[in-house]
Amino acid sequence: MTIADLRAAHGETLGAAIKANSERTFHAHWPEPPSGKIYGETANDDGLAAFQGQLHKKFDRISPEEKWVGEEKSPYGFPLDISYPQIGVDELVARASDAQTAWQSLSPEDRAAILVEALERGSQKFFEIGYATQHTTGQGFVMAFQASGPHAFDRALEATAMALAAQTSFVQNVLWTKPMGKISVSINKTYRIVPKGINLVIGCSTFPVWNTVPGMFAALATGNSVIVKPHPGAIYPIAILIAELRDIFSSLGLNPNIIQLGVDTIAHPITLELLQHPAIRVVDYTGGPHFGTIVEQECAASGKTVFTEKAGVNCVILDSTHDLDKSIENLAFSLTLYSGQMCTAPQNIFIAQDGMLVNGERVTVEQVASKLSEKIDALVFHEKAGGSTLGAIQNPATALRIQEVRDLKLQIIRDSEAIAQPGFDEARTFSPILLGTDVGRADVYTKEWFGPISFLISTESFESSLAEVVQSIHEQGALSVLVYSTNEALMQQAEDAVVNAGAPIAFNFNSFVWVNQSAAFSDFHGAGCNPAGNATFADWSFVTNRYNVIGVRKQA
Amino acid sequence: MTIADLRAAHGETLGAAIKANSERTFHAHWPEPPSGKIYGETANDDGLAAFQGQLHKKFDRISPEEKWVGEEKSPYGFPLDISYPQIGVDELVARASDAQTAWQSLSPEDRAAILVEALERGSQKFFEIGYATQHTTGQGFVMAFQASGPHAFDRALEATAMALAAQTSFVQNVLWTKPMGKISVSINKTYRIVPKGINLVIGCSTFPVWNTVPGMFAALATGNSVIVKPHPGAIYPIAILIAELRDIFSSLGLNPNIIQLGVDTIAHPITLELLQHPAIRVVDYTGGPHFGTIVEQECAASGKTVFTEKAGVNCVILDSTHDLDKSIENLAFSLTLYSGQMCTAPQNIFIAQDGMLVNGERVTVEQVASKLSEKIDALVFHEKAGGSTLGAIQNPATALRIQEVRDLKLQIIRDSEAIAQPGFDEARTFSPILLGTDVGRADVYTKEWFGPISFLISTESFESSLAEVVQSIHEQGALSVLVYSTNEALMQQAEDAVVNAGAPIAFNFNSFVWVNQSAAFSDFHGAGCNPAGNATFADWSFVTNRYNVIGVRKQA
Repeated sequence: MTIADLRAAHGETLGAAIKANSERTFHAHWPEPPSGKIYGETANDDGLAAFQGQLHKKFDRISPEEKWVGEEKSPYGFPLDISYPQIGVDELVARASDAQTAWQSLSPEDRAAILVEALERGSQKFFEIGYATQHTTGQGFVMAFQASGPHAFDRALEATAMALAAQTSFVQNVLWTKPMGKISVSINKTYRIVPKGINLVIGCSTFPVWNTVPGMFAALATGNSVIVKPHPGAIYPIAILIAELRDIFSSLGLNPNIIQLGVDTIAHPITLELLQHPAIRVVDYTGGPHFGTIVEQECAASGKTVFTEKAGVNCVILDSTHDLDKSIENLAFSLTLYSGQMCTAPQNIFIAQDGMLVNGERVTVEQVASKLSEKIDALVFHEKAGGSTLGAIQNPATALRIQEVRDLKLQIIRDSEAIAQPGFDEARTFSPILLGTDVGRADVYTKEWFGPISFLISTESFESSLAEVVQSIHEQGALSVLVYSTNEALMQQAEDAVVNAGAPIAFNFNSFVWVNQSAAFSDFHGAGCNPAGNATFADWSFVTNRYNVIGVRKQA
Repeated sequence: MTIADLRAAHGETLGAAIKANSERTFHAHWPEPPSGKIYGETANDDGLAAFQGQLHKKFDRISPEEKWVGEEKSPYGFPLDISYPQIGVDELVARASDAQTAWQSLSPEDRAAILVEALERGSQKFFEIGYATQHTTGQGFVMAFQASGPHAFDRALEATAMALAAQTSFVQNVLWTKPMGKISVSINKTYRIVPKGINLVIGCSTFPVWNTVPGMFAALATGNSVIVKPHPGAIYPIAILIAELRDIFSSLGLNPNIIQLGVDTIAHPITLELLQHPAIRVVDYTGGPHFGTIVEQECAASGKTVFTEKAGVNCVILDSTHDLDKSIENLAFSLTLYSGQMCTAPQNIFIAQDGMLVNGERVTVEQVASKLSEKIDALVFHEKAGGSTLGAIQNPATALRIQEVRDLKLQIIRDSEAIAQPGFDEARTFSPILLGTDVGRADVYTKEWFGPISFLISTESFESSLAEVVQSIHEQGALSVLVYSTNEALMQQAEDAVVNAGAPIAFNFNSFVWVNQSAAFSDFHGAGCNPAGNATFADWSFVTNRYNVIGVRKQA
C-alpha cells in the first residue's frame, strides 16, 4: 500500500465531503444504524468480544512504555481495569517534534488520503468503539455507537475536507510574469503550507471521540503533529483510533509519533504542563468552562492558537405551537437523552406567565409543566428504550448536583430517580429533575447545572423571556437555543436577537431532530462567539488558523 | 444608483479578483504607471491642484465636528497645515455601533460591490492620493502614486475578494432532509454571517494607504464597521478614500459611520484608549514592534482578534551568482528605494569570509563591498532618478539613528549623505549608509535599524550565514529574506530552513522585481508566524477571523 493507492482509493470520498461542506445538504459517509446489515453480521459480537477481551489488560496497540496508568470506571458500575503506556511531557513533545518535519512535507492531498484511510479502518471497529464509549461515558449503546462512530467520524472527515479545500484553494506553484511595456519579468513562485507546530487536543469525559476528532483531524490534515490528552476517565474509545492512525503511519514508513496518546490520572494531571510547553503551538480543548477559561488565558498570554468548546446555559422559549404534544415530546427527549449530559442539552425553559398559545387557545404554565413531566415520564419509563435513552451518569459530581438543586426548595415539577439498567445493577443513573421557578430566582438558574437538571421559568412575556435568553448568552454562553412559536414576527425577533448575541437558534422542532444534535457537513457546531467557546466545527477558521502560507520566489 | 446596479457593474471585477487569488498569476485591476494615457491627460494636473488646494485648509470632505486637529509636515520641508474633524473615542464607538446593524444585514455580495465602487471612485483620485502620500511619507512621487494608488487598491480588492469567496463558499439556505428508513425528516437551515463587531485599523506613517486598506476592506467586506486611526503624520492619503466611502454609503441610504476617521495628535494619542474599548472586537495594526507587542498583548488579554504587521530584521545571504553586476544592482536598489524605509527592505547582508563565487571565480568580500557601494552610488547620484528613488526621510528619529550607527566606529563602506530634491531645499534626505562588520558585532546588527542603514557581515561560511538568518527570524522576525546562490543544494537548504523558521524567501533577484515588493493577488505579504507580525495579506485567516457563522434551523 502506497500513498498514491490511498489517494486513488479515497479521492471520491474527499471530493464528496468537500461538496457536502459547500452544499450543506444531508451527507453521511458512515451510516448511523448499528446494524449488522451495514457493518457485517458479526460486527456487534466481534466488537463486544474485543471490548471484553481488552478489559483488565494493558492496551498494547500502542508502543509499550515503562510506565502504565489507567483508572477508567464504567458508569454502569465496574472498573475497566485497562492501563495505557504513559510518556512524560518533555518526551511526548520531543517525539512529536521529531515526527513533524516528514509529515508537513507531504502534500495536503497525501495527508488527507492517509487520514481517510485511518477513518475507514477505524470504522471497522465502530462496535468496539461503541462499547468502549458506553462504558466510559455512560451513554446508552446505540448513542455511544453513533456519537463516537459514524457521527464523530463524519465530523473528522468534515474537518479533513475543509482543511484540504483551504490548502488547495490556490495553486502550489506558478510562473508569474509581469508585463512592463516592451519587456516583462518572470518569477517562479511556490507557496508552502507551514503548520504552526505541535497541536495538543484535550478531550472530555462525555464525548471522548466526537469532541476530539475535529481538532485532531484538522490539525493532522494541516501538517501538524498531534498529542491527544484524553480525560483520564475516557481514554479507551479514542485510543482505538489513535492506534489505527499510528499503524498506518508506520506501514507507510512515516513516524507513528505524528499522533500520540498522552495519558494522565486525576491525581497527577499533565494538561497544564503540556499546554505551557513552548513547543505546543495550537490547543484544542473540550471540557468545563472553568478550566477552559484558564486554557484560553494561558494560550493568549503565550501567543498560542486555541480552539475551545466549553459549555454554556442552553435556553428554550415556549410561546406557541400547533401541536403541543409533539413539541413537548421533542423537548422532553432533549432533556432526557444521555441524562442531560450533552453540552447542547437545554437547561432553562422560559415561558410567559400566561402560558402557551396552542392553535389559538391558552394553555397554562401548569398545564405545560405537567405535559412536560408526563412526556419525560413516558421516555424514562419506556420499557424497551428508557434505559438506553438515559444511559448512566459519567461523573459522581453530577449525582451530588441533583441533590444540591433539590435542596434549594424550588417547586419540583418532576423529581429525579434511579432507573434500571438491566445487567448493570451498580449503574449510576438519574432521570431528569425539572424545577419550576420564576425570574426572581435568577441567582439559581443563571449558571450551568450540568446533568439532568432543568428549570421551567415563568416570565412576564415573550419579550422578557427573550431578554433573559440574550443576557444568558452574553454572560454564560450557549451552544443551542430552541424556540417554539407560530408567530412569524416573534420568530424573526428571536432569530435576530439570538444570532446577534452569538448563538445558534432552532425553531419548532417536533420530529426526529433534536436541538442537542448537530449534523456534520450541515450544522456548524459551536458559534465561536459567545462564552461557551471560540471554536466552530468546522468553519474556515477552524482549519486555516493551524498553518501559515509562506512564499518562495525565484528569478526565472 | 442602487446596490443592484453596483453588483451588475462590479461582478466581473470581483470574479476576476477571486480567480486571481486562486491562480496567483500576474493580475492588476489598476495599472501602475502614473500615466495620462491611462488615467486621463489632465489627471496629474488635477491631482496636483487638488493637493495644493487642500493645503492650509480644513479637510471638509468628512462631516464637520467642533474640534479640528492636524499636524502633518512634508518630509520635503513644509507643513501641510490641514486639519481634520476630531471625534472622541466613546463617540466614535457609539457611531460605529449604530452603523453596524444595517451594514451586517447586507449580503456579502452587496457589501463587496459597494466596496469596489468606492475603490473605483477613489482611483479617480490616484494623483491627489499620490501627492498626499509623497508629502506625508516622503516617498518619491512615482512610488507614492503606485504604493498608495494601484498597488494599495489591488490589495484592498484582493482582501475584498477573499472575504467574498470565504463567505459565499457555502450556501446561505438549504432544505436538509435526512432519510430515516421509511420516513425522512426535513429542516430548513439558514447560515448567517455575524461580524465580530467594530474593527479598529491603526495605520503607520510610511505606508498610510497600502498597509491600512487590507484590514479595512477585509473588515468592511465581512460586515464590520470600521474606525481607521491613522498615524498623525499621515492622515491625508487615507482620508481621501474614507471620504469616498462615506459618500457612497450616504448616497445608498446607509449610515456613513460604517467607516470613520479617528484622528489624534502625537501629544494626545487615542490609540490605546480606542483599542481598550470593549466594543472594539478586531484590531489591525501596522507600525513599530514595541507598540505592536503592546497591542498584541492588550488584545490577547481581552479576547480581541488582532492582526499585526510590525517589523523585523530582513536578511540577505550572498553566496554565488552568474551575474554579479545585475545581482548587486538589484540589492542596491532594495537598499536605496525610499531610503530603506520599507518594512521589507534588507538590513543584514551576510557573506562568507571567502567572498562570493561568480561563475566559478572567487570575488572577495572587499570586492563585493565596493561593488555594492558603487551600485548604490549609481542610484543615489543618478541625475534624473536619484531623488525620486530615495525620496525623503519621514521621521526625524531616522536621521538621529544614522548618526548613532555612524558613531559605533564600525567600518563605513559607504557613508550616508544628504541629496538634492529639486524644488524642496528643506527636504530631509539621507542616502544609504553601509557598514562592514562580522559576527562578533551581533550586539549591533541583531536589532532593527529602521531607515537607510545596512550591514555587510562576514561569516565563516554559507552555513554560518544561514544559521544567523534563522536565529534572526526567530528572535527579531522578518518580512523578507533574499539569497543569491547558484548552488541548488544550498538553495534547497536555505529554503527549508527559512520557510520552517517562518519567513518568505527570494532567490537571485536580478531584474525589475525587488525583494521589498510584494504583488497583490500573488504574493502573500507577511508570513504571520514570526515576530514581525501575525497577519498575512490576504490569506484565509485574514478574512475568516473577522466573523462567525451562526445557524438558524426551522422544522420544515
